[in-house]
Amino acid sequence: MFDVVAFGEAMIRLSPPHFMRLEQTHTLDVVVGGGELNVAVSCSRLGLRTAWVSRLTDNPLGRMVRNKAREQGVNTDYCLWTKGDRIGLYFMEFGAAPRASSVLYDRASSAIANIRPGEVDWGKVLNGARLFHVSGITPALSRSAAEVTTEALKAAKAAGCQVSYDLNYRSKLWSAEEARRIQTPMMEYVDILISTEEDTKVVFGISAQGTDDKSFTDVKAEGYKTVAKALQERFKFRAVAITLRRTITVWRNGWSAIAYDGKRFYEDVEREVEIVDRIGGGDSFSAGLIYGYLKGDLDYGLKFGNAFSALKHSIPGDLNWVNVDEVEGLMKGSGSLRVQR
Amino acid sequence: MFDVVAFGEAMIRLSPPHFMRLEQTHTLDVVVGGGELNVAVSCSRLGLRTAWVSRLTDNPLGRMVRNKAREQGVNTDYCLWTKGDRIGLYFMEFGAAPRASSVLYDRASSAIANIRPGEVDWGKVLNGARLFHVSGITPALSRSAAEVTTEALKAAKAAGCQVSYDLNYRSKLWSAEEARRIQTPMMEYVDILISTEEDTKVVFGISAQGTDDKSFTDVKAEGYKTVAKALQERFKFRAVAITLRRTITVWRNGWSAIAYDGKRFYEDVEREVEIVDRIGGGDSFSAGLIYGYLKGDLDYGLKFGNAFSALKHSIPGDLNWVNVDEVEGLMKGSGSLRVQR
Amino acid sequence: MFDVVAFGEAMIRLSPPHFMRLEQTHTLDVVVGGGELNVAVSCSRLGLRTAWVSRLTDNPLGRMVRNKAREQGVNTDYCLWTKGDRIGLYFMEFGAAPRASSVLYDRASSAIANIRPGEVDWGKVLNGARLFHVSGITPALSRSAAEVTTEALKAAKAAGCQVSYDLNYRSKLWSAEEARRIQTPMMEYVDILISTEEDTKVVFGISAQGTDDKSFTDVKAEGYKTVAKALQERFKFRAVAITLRRTITVWRNGWSAIAYDGKRFYEDVEREVEIVDRIGGGDSFSAGLIYGYLKGDLDYGLKFGNAFSALKHSIPGDLNWVNVDEVEGLMKGSGSLRVQR
Amino acid sequence: MFDVVAFGEAMIRLSPPHFMRLEQTHTLDVVVGGGELNVAVSCSRLGLRTAWVSRLTDNPLGRMVRNKAREQGVNTDYCLWTKGDRIGLYFMEFGAAPRASSVLYDRASSAIANIRPGEVDWGKVLNGARLFHVSGITPALSRSAAEVTTEALKAAKAAGCQVSYDLNYRSKLWSAEEARRIQTPMMEYVDILISTEEDTKVVFGISAQGTDDKSFTDVKAEGYKTVAKALQERFKFRAVAITLRRTITVWRNGWSAIAYDGKRFYEDVEREVEIVDRIGGGDSFSAGLIYGYLKGDLDYGLKFGNAFSALKHSIPGDLNWVNVDEVEGLMKGSGSLRVQR
Amino acid sequence: MFDVVAFGEAMIRLSPPHFMRLEQTHTLDVVVGGGELNVAVSCSRLGLRTAWVSRLTDNPLGRMVRNKAREQGVNTDYCLWTKGDRIGLYFMEFGAAPRASSVLYDRASSAIANIRPGEVDWGKVLNGARLFHVSGITPALSRSAAEVTTEALKAAKAAGCQVSYDLNYRSKLWSAEEARRIQTPMMEYVDILISTEEDTKVVFGISAQGTDDKSFTDVKAEGYKTVAKALQERFKFRAVAITLRRTITVWRNGWSAIAYDGKRFYEDVEREVEIVDRIGGGDSFSAGLIYGYLKGDLDYGLKFGNAFSALKHSIPGDLNWVNVDEVEGLMKGSGSLRVQR
Amino acid sequence: MFDVVAFGEAMIRLSPPHFMRLEQTHTLDVVVGGGELNVAVSCSRLGLRTAWVSRLTDNPLGRMVRNKAREQGVNTDYCLWTKGDRIGLYFMEFGAAPRASSVLYDRASSAIANIRPGEVDWGKVLNGARLFHVSGITPALSRSAAEVTTEALKAAKAAGCQVSYDLNYRSKLWSAEEARRIQTPMMEYVDILISTEEDTKVVFGISAQGTDDKSFTDVKAEGYKTVAKALQERFKFRAVAITLRRTITVWRNGWSAIAYDGKRFYEDVEREVEIVDRIGGGDSFSAGLIYGYLKGDLDYGLKFGNAFSALKHSIPGDLNWVNVDEVEGLMKGSGSLRVQR
Repeated sequence: MFDVVAFGEAMIRLSPPHFMRLEQTHTLDVVVGGGELNVAVSCSRLGLRTAWVSRLTDNPLGRMVRNKAREQGVNTDYCLWTKGDRIGLYFMEFGAAPRASSVLYDRASSAIANIRPGEVDWGKVLNGARLFHVSGITPALSRSAAEVTTEALKAAKAAGCQVSYDLNYRSKLWSAEEARRIQTPMMEYVDILISTEEDTKVVFGISAQGTDDKSFTDVKAEGYKTVAKALQERFKFRAVAITLRRTITVWRNGWSAIAYDGKRFYEDVEREVEIVDRIGGGDSFSAGLIYGYLKGDLDYGLKFGNAFSALKHSIPGDLNWVNVDEVEGLMKGSGSLRVQR
Repeated sequence: MFDVVAFGEAMIRLSPPHFMRLEQTHTLDVVVGGGELNVAVSCSRLGLRTAWVSRLTDNPLGRMVRNKAREQGVNTDYCLWTKGDRIGLYFMEFGAAPRASSVLYDRASSAIANIRPGEVDWGKVLNGARLFHVSGITPALSRSAAEVTTEALKAAKAAGCQVSYDLNYRSKLWSAEEARRIQTPMMEYVDILISTEEDTKVVFGISAQGTDDKSFTDVKAEGYKTVAKALQERFKFRAVAITLRRTITVWRNGWSAIAYDGKRFYEDVEREVEIVDRIGGGDSFSAGLIYGYLKGDLDYGLKFGNAFSALKHSIPGDLNWVNVDEVEGLMKGSGSLRVQR
Repeated sequence: MFDVVAFGEAMIRLSPPHFMRLEQTHTLDVVVGGGELNVAVSCSRLGLRTAWVSRLTDNPLGRMVRNKAREQGVNTDYCLWTKGDRIGLYFMEFGAAPRASSVLYDRASSAIANIRPGEVDWGKVLNGARLFHVSGITPALSRSAAEVTTEALKAAKAAGCQVSYDLNYRSKLWSAEEARRIQTPMMEYVDILISTEEDTKVVFGISAQGTDDKSFTDVKAEGYKTVAKALQERFKFRAVAITLRRTITVWRNGWSAIAYDGKRFYEDVEREVEIVDRIGGGDSFSAGLIYGYLKGDLDYGLKFGNAFSALKHSIPGDLNWVNVDEVEGLMKGSGSLRVQR
Repeated sequence: MFDVVAFGEAMIRLSPPHFMRLEQTHTLDVVVGGGELNVAVSCSRLGLRTAWVSRLTDNPLGRMVRNKAREQGVNTDYCLWTKGDRIGLYFMEFGAAPRASSVLYDRASSAIANIRPGEVDWGKVLNGARLFHVSGITPALSRSAAEVTTEALKAAKAAGCQVSYDLNYRSKLWSAEEARRIQTPMMEYVDILISTEEDTKVVFGISAQGTDDKSFTDVKAEGYKTVAKALQERFKFRAVAITLRRTITVWRNGWSAIAYDGKRFYEDVEREVEIVDRIGGGDSFSAGLIYGYLKGDLDYGLKFGNAFSALKHSIPGDLNWVNVDEVEGLMKGSGSLRVQR
Repeated sequence: MFDVVAFGEAMIRLSPPHFMRLEQTHTLDVVVGGGELNVAVSCSRLGLRTAWVSRLTDNPLGRMVRNKAREQGVNTDYCLWTKGDRIGLYFMEFGAAPRASSVLYDRASSAIANIRPGEVDWGKVLNGARLFHVSGITPALSRSAAEVTTEALKAAKAAGCQVSYDLNYRSKLWSAEEARRIQTPMMEYVDILISTEEDTKVVFGISAQGTDDKSFTDVKAEGYKTVAKALQERFKFRAVAITLRRTITVWRNGWSAIAYDGKRFYEDVEREVEIVDRIGGGDSFSAGLIYGYLKGDLDYGLKFGNAFSALKHSIPGDLNWVNVDEVEGLMKGSGSLRVQR
Repeated sequence: MFDVVAFGEAMIRLSPPHFMRLEQTHTLDVVVGGGELNVAVSCSRLGLRTAWVSRLTDNPLGRMVRNKAREQGVNTDYCLWTKGDRIGLYFMEFGAAPRASSVLYDRASSAIANIRPGEVDWGKVLNGARLFHVSGITPALSRSAAEVTTEALKAAKAAGCQVSYDLNYRSKLWSAEEARRIQTPMMEYVDILISTEEDTKVVFGISAQGTDDKSFTDVKAEGYKTVAKALQERFKFRAVAITLRRTITVWRNGWSAIAYDGKRFYEDVEREVEIVDRIGGGDSFSAGLIYGYLKGDLDYGLKFGNAFSALKHSIPGDLNWVNVDEVEGLMKGSGSLRVQR
């Protein structure tokens, strides 16, 4: 019986060391990551019983993905295995101003894209679960992946568990119109919607007031309150949370978030983050929000998610190798930036 | 105007360091390789003017492949570029007895598989060329790749250049029957056939006399003379060359080759090779044979190819970073195994 | 409900790269290992439901140990955690003839040495288990660790599960006399005794006939049959298995094993192994023997264990990243040493 | 027939990883670089047909230099080869405030220092070329290298191609007086002079107005307009371009440039650059300026050069692994600093 | 005959590369460090004849510690050796805002903790010495280590050499009360007390005026003058020096120091330091202060120490691989942050 | 007062990792080595008080050389320092059969080549010394280096210390005739001559009987007895020692030595060595011979040198990181090749 069940793809991430361009590198660092897996791993690290559902190719790469989930205490018993297809890859280049970091996907024809409705025993894995999590990447993978996402959302509702949904728009996978058309009906099953300041605009056409800076270098929390409110009102979510990234340079960002529950807004401090690896920052926010929400309330979830994900930016890889006590230390402000001995 | 033109796929090779299993690794070493590219690079290193023809995706991985060819002096002006498809990958695990080294391909949907007849200006690239080289991997990639292979073979004949063909059977790409059916008509354009002791058996059903050792741990040159003879007689090749690998352990092999020109057999010493990386060993033999054959005769080609490819086994990566004077030194037997100062 | 439950210490292993001496190194490779954990991991990889019981310090090193067990599917829910003590370390130097590989232990005061009887709920973890495994290292760690070992052995018998015991003598931890005095009463609970040709002599004073070569460079299976027989007769084991290592050089060994069940002897081929990392070779034999014994019989267990552990020698780290199909391939002799594509 | 021909030395660069001091390091990262080669590589990457002329020792290091030029599509057919002399080396230490990065040259007696007039067939390599590029490093290498530089400049004029000259003063190679004495007569052949704010002062004694800050931490574009104007007026250059580096810390610089064509000044935005490796930043500006100037006009060249070289600072090594579309993206300001997916 | 003699523990430091968490790493970088050894090494690099006294285990780790001291010219002839005990270790994690760097000690039962009064021939090693240095870490290691510290302090006085004492409070080793109780009587032997702004508060309860910021992000020199004065007045030190760290982020600090000799205050500029590795920054200040004080006076010592330790922050490892001329260059302000060629 | 004083050059050695060719590498491993320094380091490790005399450039590379000598306890106080010249480099490629390992020297114009008679205070450094060691490399460096070698040899005789001389012929530095002409008069000062089977033939024209195998793959101890005898008789050495390397493959050698004192021959077992790095193997023999000879007699020296240098082959770098007890363990034959725990 799990607290949290997540569903989605995980890929092998290959990244050149030390700011090398992919074209020039001679070695690649290997980690595993993917939106929903990142959330599941974080939830497990925070002490929630967590399962991750996916479809994997039975080869060393598929086993590596499964292993990395298990390493963090995530249950993988409900993953499907195939001898065919492939494990998706992505190549990650770390940048420095004025060169942004960039991602090259090589994820076509991955095993999860060929998942079919009826293959996962949702009733069993969701039995007694408190929350089901999925992001907008999963339905973008293929038509059948979208069908299975809907199947899972319905099963979650049937099982009486809440649903959190991270909008996570990926323009390489589908158009904004497709994203809107396919995801809009899904929203009725969603309790908690999580998004960035960019994705709400692209997918649902809801913009922050007074924000026309295309490069999002100066993101104001105030402006995004109207976005959260508009989303909540349209879809009647229990909660909407939006992460706010202020891109000072590639190596330094301001990081905060807001939430809205239909009644009031919740805010937190903005933290300056020195960026080692920002991939998975948003997923860490989702996980921290889920943890705090399940343990306390939306306000605690927002603050926990914000602190937890701020810490993520300092850690290489997609996963957030941080512990509860470190998050609480940061939230209490007791943590100085001096060496902890 | 080129001495040698080669046509085929090159992939990004990703290999765990220090005998790690792919499933356990945290980094991957990156090199570029592919049968015909390996031959082209070796020919260029040996001083022949060489071009390599392929179809590549215009992204960092495609540029990396092109760059590595250029680095070695191989002309890539006749490569086709696409914004779509992908660059094939393969994962290489280095083993130790009793664990063999192994390869995991992830090459489906690569750019060259979608090459179409008429896209390459064979007349131009082959104009004045002395030799065209291709291997059995290229027609195995896709139906259209096979059609372009045939197109190239015909163009080569029309341009008056000789053709060398390395049988290079890949069971992951096609069945033995397909390989036989599709390649048999190609053989009429082939002047020099190169093969291993295994592939002739699998593809053309021609076995070495008195060899029933499935693991090929004791390969005898004598037995393979009948194979070379049978091949030559069936297809009327100008020359047949067969590499002979005696697999003592994973780290030690005996390595030799024989050739037959319809009149007499050519043999060379067997060398004990300490194996750093045997991928590309056969391609080095092809290149050395081509070089020696074009510069001298089949006998010189056989001996040059044998020495050149023996040296390849000591070098990491698919490519043979060896120079003509080092090959000649080994052929003369002047090279002791002591430190060269 | 587990098939196999193992109990013992795991350490962080730190080893200089590329044959460096510890005194000269600038980096250390980090893996996790320990006799019983190695067995548990192998059993899990082979498909058995497996738990590992230990006592760990709740810090990043303790979590790393736990994570690496979980990564391989081993259940760690029954491990005890403490804020105090430490995680044992060991430093591993890889050698080359005539310099043997060597190990420097830094394991004093580790968390498991302070384990106390009554702390582990043996009844629960062993409930329904088929086999309990422990090695002679665990009782050697401390007086209380020996007491808990006895407690576990009794609980195993009470739960109706078989017991396998690897003698694994460590002279740094206790004297031969202590080892004999403390372990002799434990033997009554043991069904399957596993040992090397050296340890039976040191601990129980039982030598192979006609073996007086101190350096064990020429180990004969025949001679060790008398050892197996003497052990079985003295302690009435269901089975005795002895691994036989022929140390040709540091990089090349001959590797085999024999077993005896009180009625007949079981033998297998000797395999030449090229040694990447022989630590954990014996543990792999234990795991393979357990797997084969539980799935089939002692004969199958011996052969499976022998093949499985031969493969281990080719893999860096204490753990055996090999799969069932690879072991079966080697046992069938179908596996040549050529590149597997 | 080339668009751009460059002439100069390239060295093997050896740098300790991760901010290590040279005295303390155990490994060195190896790249190839040199002012004019860096310019040639960038021109080639930007799509110009480019040749690089030098003199190289025929050993693995000389071949490495040649290979790295070829890898980027630079023609090396006109390089001279010798069995003697050596390839110059330089050791690069990366710093952090308040420790500046530093370079230790070991370039004495390199092959190019022994180049002699008459050895290069300038008429052939420059035939039809649009631009010849050289920097003040080349004539500083030796008396004969200076003679060959003059020979090349004259040949360029004779061939009707423009000349760009980067002042690039190196105090380790010659004194300011020598630099002035030898380079002054060369200026009559130069169309485009490129310099830093420091070098114009040292070599030609022309300072920016109102700048007496020796550490160049606050460089004002305005002040340097008078420098550009004075240079243009003295030597009648078609264009003068000056790069402006504002050294905030070692890891952060402000980066801009100005140009003057005798009629008007051209300026561009200052970009904050996060510095991975600033070696080659100036050479990238030269190349970008040349590209933009040849494709468009001085204004476009200045802006292109400024953007292209800002990106260089984010890339390890001397070479600028950036593509035209990335430069254009940055120039259009469309490039946010967020992850590009 | 030595200028400076230091006494204390050195450990093997193991740190994950590239901001990895210890829990996630696969390799560890190895260096040697320890407060008093760091001071000794710096003094030796600056040209002082220096000895370091400790107690070491005679194994590869103990020899590594000794070697690294010798490498820097530090005399180790007076170190004691034992076959037992162990060399202490510490694990270092490098952070990024908002995650501070952190240290995990594994130093219990180290060889120096078992040092006994009478074992070191203090009369011999201190004969003719100008200064004896120790820090508050040494007496914190064990009761007997504290006794030997007192023994050494008395011997230093007897030998007529001055004593510098770095307060260096380590809460993992002892409580503030213990630190105060044991160190207070030692203060009578101390000529120069060195401390941070934090430690004086914790150990002696003396706070900076107007400072209640627990995270020490804004440290004012003015406030700490009262601390220095209070310390000097209570213990009658010849000099008190306090380092002042302004923690802007983890990667950027402001760094300065003040000193007081009972008559006047000495101050220096604050430098912005980009932090590669701040461990050993304080020890470098001590060494620079000692050097400057012995060569000149307290004012020169303060400025030299401040510049020398600012440079330390840019260098990986505990040791300060900087030379006298580089420190003097920085002090003169002649050093720009541009590449030094 | 030293037991052993050695004189010669040390270089920075740069070697590609993992059998890479120099032309293809991206990183270089850095160690320090040189014939006489290697001997000095080994003598110091074995417990002899040892000094090394050389001339070094005062830059990071020169300091690195000095540091590495000091790290091993070798006194460097008598080294001369210059601001000019350079530190010699050599590039080392590790091979695998049939590719031999190879060395590319870049040592011209090094600091020691410009050493001048009268600069070293030989009287002081040799005062009370027991043995002076030099090899044939030192006089080969330059005319003045040869003069200083003679100066040192005379000073050694005057100081009453014995002289050991390793013939160490380097064909890149001088011709065989020069080597003979310059070294023949030096021989009168030599007590112990050390050579390989090759160098005696090349320099003094003395060959082993019955050896005409140019590749030295089968070296017989018997044949070399005549060489040792002829050398001793011609020059009246107290002892002649010849190392005998049987080159089975690049990775496996047989290694032994003989000695002759004018009366009888001394021999030892041949050991099979697995080769990690054979550079410095001969120097280790010299050091072990010196140690054993000074501690015991020629017989003990021969056996100690043979065992000590056999162990060297297993260790990366020029230096022999082995301890006395390990050598004695190997000599007693107690050392099995099993893991030492």
